[in-house]
Amino acid sequence: MKRRRFIKSTAIGAATASVLAGCGTGNTEAPAVQTDSPALRWRLASSFARSLDTIYGAADIMASYVNELTGGRFTIRVYPAGEIVPAFEVLESVQKGSVQLGHTASYYYIGKNPAFAFDTTIPFGLTARQFNSWAYHGGGLGLMRELYADYGIINFPGGNTGTQMGGWFRREINSLNDLRGLAMRIPGLGGRVMDRLGVTVQQIPGGEIYPALERGVIDAAEWVGPYDDEKLGFNNVADYYYYPGWWEPGANLSFLVNRVAWDGLPPHYQAALEAGMEAANMYMLSRYDAVNPPAMRRLAESGTQVRPFPEDVMAAAFTTSREIIQEGTSDPAYAKIHVAYHEWRDEGNRWLGLAQNAYASFVHNR
Amino acid sequence: MKRRRFIKSTAIGAATASVLAGCGTGNTEAPAVQTDSPALRWRLASSFARSLDTIYGAADIMASYVNELTGGRFTIRVYPAGEIVPAFEVLESVQKGSVQLGHTASYYYIGKNPAFAFDTTIPFGLTARQFNSWAYHGGGLGLMRELYADYGIINFPGGNTGTQMGGWFRREINSLNDLRGLAMRIPGLGGRVMDRLGVTVQQIPGGEIYPALERGVIDAAEWVGPYDDEKLGFNNVADYYYYPGWWEPGANLSFLVNRVAWDGLPPHYQAALEAGMEAANMYMLSRYDAVNPPAMRRLAESGTQVRPFPEDVMAAAFTTSREIIQEGTSDPAYAKIHVAYHEWRDEGNRWLGLAQNAYASFVHNR
Repeated sequence: MKRRRFIKSTAIGAATASVLAGCGTGNTEAPAVQTDSPALRWRLASSFARSLDTIYGAADIMASYVNELTGGRFTIRVYPAGEIVPAFEVLESVQKGSVQLGHTASYYYIGKNPAFAFDTTIPFGLTARQFNSWAYHGGGLGLMRELYADYGIINFPGGNTGTQMGGWFRREINSLNDLRGLAMRIPGLGGRVMDRLGVTVQQIPGGEIYPALERGVIDAAEWVGPYDDEKLGFNNVADYYYYPGWWEPGANLSFLVNRVAWDGLPPHYQAALEAGMEAANMYMLSRYDAVNPPAMRRLAESGTQVRPFPEDVMAAAFTTSREIIQEGTSDPAYAKIHVAYHEWRDEGNRWLGLAQNAYASFVHNR
Repeated sequence: MKRRRFIKSTAIGAATASVLAGCGTGNTEAPAVQTDSPALRWRLASSFARSLDTIYGAADIMASYVNELTGGRFTIRVYPAGEIVPAFEVLESVQKGSVQLGHTASYYYIGKNPAFAFDTTIPFGLTARQFNSWAYHGGGLGLMRELYADYGIINFPGGNTGTQMGGWFRREINSLNDLRGLAMRIPGLGGRVMDRLGVTVQQIPGGEIYPALERGVIDAAEWVGPYDDEKLGFNNVADYYYYPGWWEPGANLSFLVNRVAWDGLPPHYQAALEAGMEAANMYMLSRYDAVNPPAMRRLAESGTQVRPFPEDVMAAAFTTSREIIQEGTSDPAYAKIHVAYHEWRDEGNRWLGLAQNAYASFVHNR
């Protein structure tokens, strides 16, 4: 297996060299495929700003692992969103080979294929633990790779945010009725659900949310969770912080690798990338779980009112989410993933609802 | 830093060579410390039987990553419990250098130092996500390494079971009173808590639980969770399956590495071990989350009655656990870890109780 992979990588050496040459970041000392451990410099385009340090930082962690694992011979330089590639064009850039690697959220590309949503998160979808079990052991990664194969890309899990918060509201929400007519910044499928619930959905870039909330252009906005939200200062312009972010119960980020570049790597470099990506996956959620708790404490201490969404909001959101996600199933490829994803979710929920959830609920109330 | 580490490893070459020679598994082609990528064969003693394939398998996953990452030059052979080292003597074996690596649960060694419990799990302690965040980002791993330094060992997280089940009972438990006089197989701190709650605690090896339950020698027994329990057939000899296993809310397994052997490795081999161990950590929990749900479904279909522990049992267990864990704090080293651990738990619980738990509770009830 190992031997066969290595022979294969030699055979496609010419194609690899052209991808590497295409972005001016080829090997620096010797032809990549003619030594056991070629010196390589790759570029990674991130969809995220450095200020989102937990998400952005996962790519740095991956790169530093690969560097250490190869004794410094395989280096990866990470570029933040917009520096060499715009935030939402990472897939295209990796596809063309203008960078070998990307770190992004697949749901940015649902315009190309709605099924990309399943690789990140969907409303009332998998939690972080469920996503990892599905990806690594439940066939989920294989299904996602079928999607990405059409773009000459091989994808890997690249970190998870955990269940996000439901966002900042300038007014208290006591029932579904209070959502009607509210102007809220909420992108993606969550926005589509909110739209059907009567919310006036706004698309606003991260950096413009604060002034829009402050001036009352919008009444509410969602971002990520306590640690990231605190940095943008939303607590200064909205009093109520709702949970849970049912539209992002466990957002998975993805590493995308140009397939030709990947196939040209010696097996131990492929292993270094895979190991670095798994380490990045572990890093992101464990770091969020370290930095969110003190951020939430500080927000509460500063006067933020932390509230659960009312029951009728949750129930209506659940029903409407199911309708919207169901609508894509006229496409056979989407339908196949939809079925597998929801079977995994439902069986997982039945188990996680027992020991894990009973324990968490008990200690939360102590 | 890298350079300094490498020079250091050369300086202690003699000590390393003697450790390697001590177990007859030194390098096979050239002196370990005189090439960039020495050929090495290490041995790993596991505390687990092959039949516990999810726990045992994590060591295999780690070994296979190290093999791939080093192009096959650094190989690790994994031995199941009892084959070269008895299950509960892995720490001693790694300490002496008769094996370079171990995969075990630190709480097996609380006889040496009660604080080892914090490296695995304690009653009402950290969940899997909390443990990883504490270990990797909250100073937890540093505290644990201070303990292991006394034994010439460096330790790493090595997988997590998630919250376990509360075990099998031949009779229904409707209140704390029903526990009194019950004979239950439950080891460790959970057993000490149960003892104070009036249970007659029994220590029985895994392989002997089934006949003891069947003959009525014991009335109850805890093992791990649905996947592992189903293999031992407990559903055939006990009707009631209780949750949660509050004494093991997130059991972390540990890799132990002989410190001299570790220091003798070139930096990229150290990185390969670290990456392999992180991959193993990700592997174990995600695999448990894949195999437990269908096992729980099969058990329920076969007639097992799945029940939550009554509220008064949970409340009494919580109070008694706190007392027992508090008792160790007369020792300053234990007390220091005790404080750090519980601060992490309490602040984590306040955050995880919001978005994560509200979401999990909601979807569980759909």
